[in-house]
Amino acid sequence: MYSLDELSRMTETGIGELEFPARPERLYRPVRYTLESGGKRVRPLLTLASCLLFTDRAEKALPAAMGIEVFHNFTLLHDDIMDRAELRRGRPTVHSRWNDNVAILSGDAMVVCAYDLISRSEPDKLAPILRVFNALALGVCEGQQYDMDFEETEGVTVERYIEMIRLKTSVMVGGAARIGAIAGSAPQREEERLYDFGVNLGLAFQLQDDVLDTYGDEKTFGKQIGGDIVTNKKTFLLIRALELAKGGTKNYLQRLLSGKEQKTREGKIAAVRAVYDAVGVRELAEREIERYFDRAETLLGEVEVPEARKGPMREIMHLLVKRNK
Amino acid sequence: MYSLDELSRMTETGIGELEFPARPERLYRPVRYTLESGGKRVRPLLTLASCLLFTDRAEKALPAAMGIEVFHNFTLLHDDIMDRAELRRGRPTVHSRWNDNVAILSGDAMVVCAYDLISRSEPDKLAPILRVFNALALGVCEGQQYDMDFEETEGVTVERYIEMIRLKTSVMVGGAARIGAIAGSAPQREEERLYDFGVNLGLAFQLQDDVLDTYGDEKTFGKQIGGDIVTNKKTFLLIRALELAKGGTKNYLQRLLSGKEQKTREGKIAAVRAVYDAVGVRELAEREIERYFDRAETLLGEVEVPEARKGPMREIMHLLVKRNK
Repeated sequence: MYSLDELSRMTETGIGELEFPARPERLYRPVRYTLESGGKRVRPLLTLASCLLFTDRAEKALPAAMGIEVFHNFTLLHDDIMDRAELRRGRPTVHSRWNDNVAILSGDAMVVCAYDLISRSEPDKLAPILRVFNALALGVCEGQQYDMDFEETEGVTVERYIEMIRLKTSVMVGGAARIGAIAGSAPQREEERLYDFGVNLGLAFQLQDDVLDTYGDEKTFGKQIGGDIVTNKKTFLLIRALELAKGGTKNYLQRLLSGKEQKTREGKIAAVRAVYDAVGVRELAEREIERYFDRAETLLGEVEVPEARKGPMREIMHLLVKRNK
Repeated sequence: MYSLDELSRMTETGIGELEFPARPERLYRPVRYTLESGGKRVRPLLTLASCLLFTDRAEKALPAAMGIEVFHNFTLLHDDIMDRAELRRGRPTVHSRWNDNVAILSGDAMVVCAYDLISRSEPDKLAPILRVFNALALGVCEGQQYDMDFEETEGVTVERYIEMIRLKTSVMVGGAARIGAIAGSAPQREEERLYDFGVNLGLAFQLQDDVLDTYGDEKTFGKQIGGDIVTNKKTFLLIRALELAKGGTKNYLQRLLSGKEQKTREGKIAAVRAVYDAVGVRELAEREIERYFDRAETLLGEVEVPEARKGPMREIMHLLVKRNK
């Protein structure tokens, strides 16, 4: 039986063995740069662990797992252009190290490389894997568009926010799990269960990411805290706080958002956080995270395979969510 | 037997029936806008005509033909961002009508939609079609990168230029023909022959496009003449002229390129064209076009199917090249 360590080794070896042409250098060097920069490789691990539920040969899912990881990294690369992000995993983003055109085009090449990897799946699994992959890839684009739309939208509700993160983050997590199940020849109902499992896990992960952006420890979180507050990003915390705050508190929060209440960066972060604490939105968010996480656990529990096969998947769940506990 | 008219109707109906979700509006409206803006639909026609060489049921290639057309339009959309082009087919480009982020993301969605269409090919043809499609898609990215690299490169040779246009334009034309052959269950050697046919046809087309940009009739060419000269674009004409011009002529050409020889837009176009005429590069280009076109014709002639089946393909050849004659 594989352990998570073995799946991790399989993933890192797989990434390391990806080959890209030497030229044109400004097309492929940014691709290698992006893939080398690490990350937790959670999505390919999910694909492999999902496959492992149904077969000892997790490597059956390896080409698709690599395709999913390359696609995920492509979305980061293009999102960083759109968000004008300067840093990613502690290094300059592709568009800031090279330029926008290099970032656009090397991202485009990564999508094709992702499909090329997916295409190496076993022929009898190719069509169903592609169907899931296409849907998750389009979901990510839709989620990113909603995310950008929300910047200019008043009155975004929690429901619409959850739908946005479902598309932007969770369908890829769900799709990664489902594709692993397909590669492992899982029955249809297990395939669907693993999709739902992944979607719930992805929602828990994204909500936790929101909480950590405001309340996390910079050392373990790996990026600067407070970015969401500084940019007035409409996260679960802010949307709920705007709904729940009353009277003077609501007024004060709105003055903080509009900049009428003059603050330094750190001052604004502390002040908004104080409002969040007063209104109790952190607890609300953590309750939602628990709810989605528990749902994912229940779904995994229902998968009709020996419990021993589920070990690596349970470890990945805890790698992805509750990482600061 | 299908005629070209019938293939054209099949193509336009296929494009018209493509469905995209209504929302997010800023993701899918630019996709529809791009696909509605027309163009000659040469690539899907090639795919269908190629399929028709081997089967009466050209519609077997329709999903892949649509995927190729959507992918082609994606490349135009992203190239227009990179080239800062304001107009395409007489209408504002997506990035100028909306903005760069909308153009990046709706282009990304188009790639996924293209693969989604390709994925609807018959299951036993899916893997080989994807293999060809992935290669042509990566070729286009490589060609675009070389094209941008050449803007900053001194001493680009004709050989490197031909390799660039082969990647940027011709492998897609060759791939379109090859995919049609695969969908039509052609024998392997015919599949390869149709690829070579398309590559040669694509080279003839691109070189002719260079000639028309300098010598064409604006009405039939459909865009402003002289753009390549104004931007010092390293086309076949300019590269060969720099090689062949001697003494004072070469000096004058270099002064025109560097801007030391002050001219209006029209003045520069006329002056560079005069150098081209003096050196005889137009004839050289037309000889190359003939050479590639003749090679394509020979290859089509060698395809071992009844001559009557080749009618639509011959018409497409003349639609694509020699369109001003």
